Amino acid sequence: MGPHPAVAAIRLAVRRVLHDILDDHLTDDTETSATPAQTPHERPPSPLVLVACSGGADSMALASALAFEAPKLGIRAGGITVDHGLQPGSDLRAEEVVLRLRELGLDPVESAAVTVGREGGPEAAARDARYAALDDAAERHGAFAVLLGHTRDDQAETVLLGLARGSGIRSLSGMAAVSGADGRYRRPFLQLDRQTARKACMAQSLPVWDDPHNTDPAYTRSRLRHEGLPALEKALGKGVVEALARTAQLSRDDADALDSWAGQAEASVRDATGLLECAKLHALPPAVRRRILRRAAIEAGAPAGSLFARHIEEVDRLITGWRGQGAINLPGRVVAQRQGGRLVIRQG
Amino acid sequence: MGPHPAVAAIRLAVRRVLHDILDDHLTDDTETSATPAQTPHERPPSPLVLVACSGGADSMALASALAFEAPKLGIRAGGITVDHGLQPGSDLRAEEVVLRLRELGLDPVESAAVTVGREGGPEAAARDARYAALDDAAERHGAFAVLLGHTRDDQAETVLLGLARGSGIRSLSGMAAVSGADGRYRRPFLQLDRQTARKACMAQSLPVWDDPHNTDPAYTRSRLRHEGLPALEKALGKGVVEALARTAQLSRDDADALDSWAGQAEASVRDATGLLECAKLHALPPAVRRRILRRAAIEAGAPAGSLFARHIEEVDRLITGWRGQGAINLPGRVVAQRQGGRLVIRQG
Repeated sequence: MGPHPAVAAIRLAVRRVLHDILDDHLTDDTETSATPAQTPHERPPSPLVLVACSGGADSMALASALAFEAPKLGIRAGGITVDHGLQPGSDLRAEEVVLRLRELGLDPVESAAVTVGREGGPEAAARDARYAALDDAAERHGAFAVLLGHTRDDQAETVLLGLARGSGIRSLSGMAAVSGADGRYRRPFLQLDRQTARKACMAQSLPVWDDPHNTDPAYTRSRLRHEGLPALEKALGKGVVEALARTAQLSRDDADALDSWAGQAEASVRDATGLLECAKLHALPPAVRRRILRRAAIEAGAPAGSLFARHIEEVDRLITGWRGQGAINLPGRVVAQRQGGRLVIRQG
Repeated sequence: MGPHPAVAAIRLAVRRVLHDILDDHLTDDTETSATPAQTPHERPPSPLVLVACSGGADSMALASALAFEAPKLGIRAGGITVDHGLQPGSDLRAEEVVLRLRELGLDPVESAAVTVGREGGPEAAARDARYAALDDAAERHGAFAVLLGHTRDDQAETVLLGLARGSGIRSLSGMAAVSGADGRYRRPFLQLDRQTARKACMAQSLPVWDDPHNTDPAYTRSRLRHEGLPALEKALGKGVVEALARTAQLSRDDADALDSWAGQAEASVRDATGLLECAKLHALPPAVRRRILRRAAIEAGAPAGSLFARHIEEVDRLITGWRGQGAINLPGRVVAQRQGGRLVIRQG
């Protein structure tokens, strides 16, 4: 008798990603780690893969599948849990996760305590602190990759959060299956639903911890998970989560293609002195032109996170709706103005 | 004292579109109408613009603004209401709308009774019948344009309906401000919220009719309007409708740009006999390649509406994941297969 279908599903998802990791490890010729034990030209025979584990169902399922699959492929498997220090007893909780990961046979396993700041709101600050700790652990241990337990449900929520920004298809593209420096972060469960991860834990009698933050209505994501998405499913049908996840992938590919087009077109619309020529910009499709304007504003010093679609639209009107309007103020003290058929974007 | 702010807003929205219509009418050199009274080379001095009016708040507001603004611009303004025959007494209701439109000073005004079929579900069938009647009326009267009362809220709902299909950014692009043959249909209220239209009716003491279909939970759009979107707003904040409408515009521009890229790239990936070369397809960005594959499948006879992202992904794997797999069956008896480095897509 084979494993429970949910267990088979999580193992298959992890196995696929471990194969990708092995391929990348074999063809990789850059130095990705610098542990004291290693000189630059010595590569360890088998790569180390860490799992980031909160103790919740998704990442416990991921840890169990990694522990099962990695040895069969000659991959070393370790784990890390981040103690965000946001709840009383979070340190004990982290120690418990460490014990569970060790029980699964992972090695090395460690807990990293972080201090969560305030920048960008509580969710963004916790995320920044978490990734900094994961990056640090990956580098200290010379890990080739770090697995993250984000599921298709998380992806759907991320797409809706992006949709609420209304800033275009890049913000609809959710989380990438491979991201971070040198493709360090991998998300094997991005096509797997949360329910499968939970069932896999139950089938393997793995205790899981439900983070109270996940049900706290003070958090946007939590409200989306427990109210927004269920209401949307009720109105639109059960396929919404899958549709959102597919939208993420399609939007990502589309955004990548348009970014590359804009990158290539940019050189062709600059004059000999490097200024943007309005007539040439005008001839481009709006989607490409606005991407070039956005790049130019960021290059001039506008912070990407504060530059909204409406800013770019206003700059765009210097080209498509020219009636002698004055300079446009952009975030980061960047000013855009039209001068003699050229667009000048610079810090004021 | 000027008009109520809501009345000023609907009039401004209509005035802008009427100016566009005048511009288009002046530069238009194709024959758009064929009324018996006109020979091909005689153009009536002032264009006729019809408003499509259900008697609901959005389209009554639109009719009132058209009646107010059109004469000032030398535009003739008429109205049409469609009797879908789906509710008892709908014919009386249509006659009432006709009277109201005449009271506003519109001329010609008529009611068109249609028979709603079943194809594509009740909402799609009603829409098809409605547009056929509007097209017919526009042609009979030689109208240059037909105004539709869709608001920003309708647009947001349309984006969510497209999102639920999960078929990419084209389905996120909602309704166009200008659409139909020769840009016949115009949507002046696409950036205006439903509440403003309703307030404008109240301020002008215009009686409005609330279609019971709009609150019938049997209809997807109605569930979305009364449950899905409010829940999403509760989770994500009040800006959701605006963000969805902006997403529509950005997605439309992006989809247009990628379609034009795919159109240009297609010629360059065909060999002398017109077959698609796999190696050249492989070198294109996935977003462009999949659009070319989709176009080729439709050209071969696959019905666009039945061709889903997963079909195209499977064909794409003949190029990016080639391991000798067999022919792929697509809707409309279209078959895609790889033969000697070429992709052959034809009806089987």
